[in-house]
Amino acid sequence: MGTVDVIIVGAGTAGLGALREVRKRTESFIIINDGPWGTMCARVGCMPSKALIEAAGEFHRRLVFPELGLSGGEGLRVDTGAVLARVRKVRDGFVSETRELTDQLGERAISGRARLRGPGQVEVGGRVLEARSIVLATGSRPTVPEAWRPFADRLLTTDSLFEERGLPSRLAVVGLGPVGLEMAQALARLGVQVTAFHAAQTIGGLSAGPVNDAALELLRHELTVHLGHEAQLTAARLPAAGSEGANGEGLRVTAGAAGVVIERALVALGRTPNVQGLGLETLGVPLDEKGLPEVDRTTLQVAGLPIFLAGDANAEVPLQHEAADDGHISGLNAVASSVRRFARRTPLSIVFTDPNLAQVGQRFDARAPDRTVVGEARFADQGRSRMMLRNAGLLRLCADREDGALTGAELFAPEGEHLAHWLALAIHRRSTVFDLLRAPFYHPTVEEGLRTALVEIAKQLPRLSGDGAFPLLSTPGA
Amino acid sequence: MGTVDVIIVGAGTAGLGALREVRKRTESFIIINDGPWGTMCARVGCMPSKALIEAAGEFHRRLVFPELGLSGGEGLRVDTGAVLARVRKVRDGFVSETRELTDQLGERAISGRARLRGPGQVEVGGRVLEARSIVLATGSRPTVPEAWRPFADRLLTTDSLFEERGLPSRLAVVGLGPVGLEMAQALARLGVQVTAFHAAQTIGGLSAGPVNDAALELLRHELTVHLGHEAQLTAARLPAAGSEGANGEGLRVTAGAAGVVIERALVALGRTPNVQGLGLETLGVPLDEKGLPEVDRTTLQVAGLPIFLAGDANAEVPLQHEAADDGHISGLNAVASSVRRFARRTPLSIVFTDPNLAQVGQRFDARAPDRTVVGEARFADQGRSRMMLRNAGLLRLCADREDGALTGAELFAPEGEHLAHWLALAIHRRSTVFDLLRAPFYHPTVEEGLRTALVEIAKQLPRLSGDGAFPLLSTPGA
Repeated sequence: MGTVDVIIVGAGTAGLGALREVRKRTESFIIINDGPWGTMCARVGCMPSKALIEAAGEFHRRLVFPELGLSGGEGLRVDTGAVLARVRKVRDGFVSETRELTDQLGERAISGRARLRGPGQVEVGGRVLEARSIVLATGSRPTVPEAWRPFADRLLTTDSLFEERGLPSRLAVVGLGPVGLEMAQALARLGVQVTAFHAAQTIGGLSAGPVNDAALELLRHELTVHLGHEAQLTAARLPAAGSEGANGEGLRVTAGAAGVVIERALVALGRTPNVQGLGLETLGVPLDEKGLPEVDRTTLQVAGLPIFLAGDANAEVPLQHEAADDGHISGLNAVASSVRRFARRTPLSIVFTDPNLAQVGQRFDARAPDRTVVGEARFADQGRSRMMLRNAGLLRLCADREDGALTGAELFAPEGEHLAHWLALAIHRRSTVFDLLRAPFYHPTVEEGLRTALVEIAKQLPRLSGDGAFPLLSTPGA
Repeated sequence: MGTVDVIIVGAGTAGLGALREVRKRTESFIIINDGPWGTMCARVGCMPSKALIEAAGEFHRRLVFPELGLSGGEGLRVDTGAVLARVRKVRDGFVSETRELTDQLGERAISGRARLRGPGQVEVGGRVLEARSIVLATGSRPTVPEAWRPFADRLLTTDSLFEERGLPSRLAVVGLGPVGLEMAQALARLGVQVTAFHAAQTIGGLSAGPVNDAALELLRHELTVHLGHEAQLTAARLPAAGSEGANGEGLRVTAGAAGVVIERALVALGRTPNVQGLGLETLGVPLDEKGLPEVDRTTLQVAGLPIFLAGDANAEVPLQHEAADDGHISGLNAVASSVRRFARRTPLSIVFTDPNLAQVGQRFDARAPDRTVVGEARFADQGRSRMMLRNAGLLRLCADREDGALTGAELFAPEGEHLAHWLALAIHRRSTVFDLLRAPFYHPTVEEGLRTALVEIAKQLPRLSGDGAFPLLSTPGA
């Protein structure tokens, strides 16, 4: 095989995004994948986790049935085996869809572990392949401390959780980033007694502040949370009664003064880019402590070389929609005569807890307080949220004091995933709070909470807000 | 009492909106209300209906419990008495909130039926009051044909439905506008055998077309629907078994060849403005067949007079948020030295069926087909919707062929109320489909369905869509 135009290493979300762009422009490409084909998102990420959350969320709603006038909710049971079987069934459907693109490629899709041999060469399965450009999209894997290897049989990650045939009665969740948080709440709602440990004081990627506090307060009604100390694991014997661990052996998790003995621990300490053994050192460019070269996010290019590093592998923004964009940008640039820069999207991240956590636009901890005005809405008293018996949570919006432009949002709110999309569009379209207040807010919806927070900002900017008709109305052009 | 600055007739959403603006500017006002204080929305509209829908929706979800891995759903029961009691409890809370503003007004809040005696005079309870400006916001009532008066004991409207202590086993719903549609589905889900009649072929205010067809197809799984003929009512004896009607007397509803004998009929034929006996004829301006004068929606003024007609009473857009705007505009103008024109919001209407129905922006039946491009998304196959087992529905977007600006949307979709707010903001901000495709769509969310429809439009506009990188990426400024 001669030199091809592009080799793509990795057939996850980023690799497939690259493949889509490359295929539109050339037939001369190879895609190499190590391990199972099908994206991480579909196999062990977004999709199975949301399927688990869906079952947990529905089951949880039985608690409001009496208030709504529905009886018999106390007879509802979770069949955890059936829940997990459904998670896998749904997952398998999504995986097979993500495989459609590569299943038809014949010899241009190679299974095996690829290794760079310099900017234009890749070795796989003993063969050396040559390409004008190479897209590296090798993804990431759950981070598990080396020291915990002796307890591997009692550890779960999202790679293994959804393969389980049942759920333990007691579980520790180590790490309350987005994934740990989602799983901790969902497993608790499915009847697992969950104890969560998190080294930081902020959870789910939030900045320190009222939204983090509100989220913690609410989550603590559902699970035990220990913050502020790194968790330590040691082997422990389980108490005799109800022991379900491997041979009665369990784990002791300690963090500061807190400790618990449990059957299994779900390790959710983030993800590590899959670049070990990839041969990045053959590129002749500096690598950081993670073994990663510098990557320009607007091009995905590595140091002027015909090498592009996309998706979780570049450790930039580990979100599916950003990985897809990474793929498209790197695919476009891999076949282009000259590398183009692309604008990136308005930041948006969502954690599918209930209520949803989300961050939009500029992070609250990155803002300049003297240039910023903050508006809030609390959902405890919000009309529609009360009606739905989902009335908990807090929304905070930031706007620029100079021009009233909405700059960022943090929220822990009912229907938060939807509010976050509205806010992301508002920021993307460079809207001021005054103009946003002229958009329609239907009654009764949770979106009325957006208006509450926007009005609070507008009131703090009297110089910009005109004659008092501002929250509602604009005068049409003469 | 001398001449006051403003008399507001009606303390509903529009009247209270006017009151809020007037109070900021003068203490010289009177507000008059006939019947119970508290807005129609809170008493018999948005709020109790949504509370009923909430119970119905939760109960309905038991049907997906087995698929999710939850057992015992077959033991769930609706206690309709308890459901209705909760509806009233929630309703009472919202009503008391809407009464807060007027409860403190003392003599400036008058209970009674007001009648105009010309542009500056109002008669109430035998007194004549004078004002520089008058805001008429008398609201509306359910439309019930005069000929059906003999069966009044067997008819329900939204004025009486929520006062019931239980629900009949069989019910006809006459009229499938937004209210009829919401109640028909909710009552069916609460166990009532519902037969619905609708004179038109389009339901819920939709235009004729695929969204209407999709909505009808789905709703017909839950209730019997007869379209295309006006319903006729006659007295009928109920079959002996299970008869619960007043004294065994029921109703026969016929429409074309269809007919049914039921215990009660919910009449949902729209609402009639409360202007009978209001004395509009004393203004000396032409009145239409509904008895209404012409009103400028940008000012709410009647024919250059110091008279403003706001909310449902003007029969323009019978939606709560538009009535509130009407109130604010009329209140502002009632105290202003000269009348100002105000821009109105991007049209947004939502019907809280499941899936939600919504219309945004320009109506589909008002568009110029040769200037329009349409994009669709079907939710049967949409990722997140499948995961939630809410995978049904259709979204259609319209854009301008010349510049790619999004102009309107019709949808019957999961989380449709939220998609509709996003679309309303997009249209409000005069966005093109190309720019909207550069906003973030998180994975996995129903908002990805928006992207599907936007991409379909963009592909039909190759002249505008650039070099193929369009759906995702913009090149940053040099």
